[in-house]
Amino acid sequence: MIMDPFGLGRIVQDGLVYRQNFDIRSYEIGADRSASIETVMNHLQSAGLLGDGFGSTPEMVKKNLIWVVTRMQVVVDKYPTWGDVVEVDTWVSKSGKNGMRRDWLVRDCNTGEILTRASSVWVMMNKVTRRLSKLPEEVRGEIEPYFVNSDPILAEDSRKLTKLDEKTADYVRSGLTPRWSDLDVNQHVNNVKYIGWILESAPVEMMEKHKLKSMTLEYRRECGRDSVLQSLTAVSGCDVGNLGTAGEVECQHLLRLQDGAEVVKGRTVWSSKTPSTTWDTTS
Amino acid sequence: MIMDPFGLGRIVQDGLVYRQNFDIRSYEIGADRSASIETVMNHLQSAGLLGDGFGSTPEMVKKNLIWVVTRMQVVVDKYPTWGDVVEVDTWVSKSGKNGMRRDWLVRDCNTGEILTRASSVWVMMNKVTRRLSKLPEEVRGEIEPYFVNSDPILAEDSRKLTKLDEKTADYVRSGLTPRWSDLDVNQHVNNVKYIGWILESAPVEMMEKHKLKSMTLEYRRECGRDSVLQSLTAVSGCDVGNLGTAGEVECQHLLRLQDGAEVVKGRTVWSSKTPSTTWDTTS
Repeated sequence: MIMDPFGLGRIVQDGLVYRQNFDIRSYEIGADRSASIETVMNHLQSAGLLGDGFGSTPEMVKKNLIWVVTRMQVVVDKYPTWGDVVEVDTWVSKSGKNGMRRDWLVRDCNTGEILTRASSVWVMMNKVTRRLSKLPEEVRGEIEPYFVNSDPILAEDSRKLTKLDEKTADYVRSGLTPRWSDLDVNQHVNNVKYIGWILESAPVEMMEKHKLKSMTLEYRRECGRDSVLQSLTAVSGCDVGNLGTAGEVECQHLLRLQDGAEVVKGRTVWSSKTPSTTWDTTS
Repeated sequence: MIMDPFGLGRIVQDGLVYRQNFDIRSYEIGADRSASIETVMNHLQSAGLLGDGFGSTPEMVKKNLIWVVTRMQVVVDKYPTWGDVVEVDTWVSKSGKNGMRRDWLVRDCNTGEILTRASSVWVMMNKVTRRLSKLPEEVRGEIEPYFVNSDPILAEDSRKLTKLDEKTADYVRSGLTPRWSDLDVNQHVNNVKYIGWILESAPVEMMEKHKLKSMTLEYRRECGRDSVLQSLTAVSGCDVGNLGTAGEVECQHLLRLQDGAEVVKGRTVWSSKTPSTTWDTTS
């Protein structure tokens, strides 16, 4: 299951941890010269690929089952920049009766400094009916030997995610549609792309002055090529008028279809790019 | 000028050709499991970076000058897939009185097979006024020693690009806006992102059955964070009703601002994904 088809990564710690290095490429950095959150998420996804055709077990193939992510929690301590090499470690554990947890630990390859910690929950989906499925005993038998017996790398963010609507949201962006390049090999929208859509309704003045520090996402429904989405954001813990100067900002997010069906619910925390010890002579 | 800040590439052929390898990552492949055209273009741009802060000469810095691309011509013979390693060679030559040509040759690293050939024309822009500039003698003196004396790797596509409007276009997509992650370090839209917008108005039934074989783009104007764009496509050399079955399709493209100002003009040629020798028993 933990595979390495191209010799790009390697198995460490008794075969239970998969490790892959990525150099940050010029086209992976954003307006502030550091890697974007999408780049960070791409590296996690790439080091932990378990989708259709990428690491399904024989019993999963026989039963038309694939893994889908239902929950993702990410804490970014530091974003790498162009030319940095990051080392991504990932491993899987049991999660409840029918699920699997996948954790990631990302370090700066040169300094060993921890950059990102992330934890996710995956369940089985029938790829034909697109309905969730219990974990069959045969599949459990195939994957259990690979489970690491450890606590999650991040304590579960158990605070309930707020249900937003037009009234409670501070910012709404409607009419978002997948670009051709947003689709994966199954013509579904790649999980990482939802993050871009969520941030479409985040206020620009906040994104300019802050960096995304942590994120909790709940994936509720798949999107296809013809989906039309609406992105909603509410700012909490800070006055909307003070977004540029607040030390830390928390946002609630909802991505939904035009008919109201929820696609992704989320919460993000943003910290100021300027260290709080900086003396601002203009204020 | 030809630089290698992180030891990721190397200089070959008497210091005039810069070579960099890229492995194709899982998140760089699209719905058909091969690298997307954006990925191909990212690799070209990454191996030939000459923008602000990335390889400006001392005289350019002194004069606030940066290189901007005005024309790009690309022929993709074969798209790499996940795990392939591509070798990108790039070099620069004189182009007219005030310009520079940059060519690229992309090979499969294992087989040596040619995958992509590309040629581009660059001129100087004042990064403060955002106006084009002549090539100052002092800058010419700095860069001329690096020019390769060779013919373009692609014969110039000298056919005039059609000027499209609502009447002549077959497909129009309006209201396109930059996502936060589309912006580069200067808050301008990264050149590669325009390709995604151009393809926004290309018919899906063509993109499903065909692959982009060649592309000629003329860059006319920059876009910023607040630009709202319209993408227009006209299909030529094929009946619009037969897009799924045509062997080769040619398209004309225009990306323009809502006020009509042209941003990018282009032409693309698409070839059928199904080899013409395949016997289709369903028809």
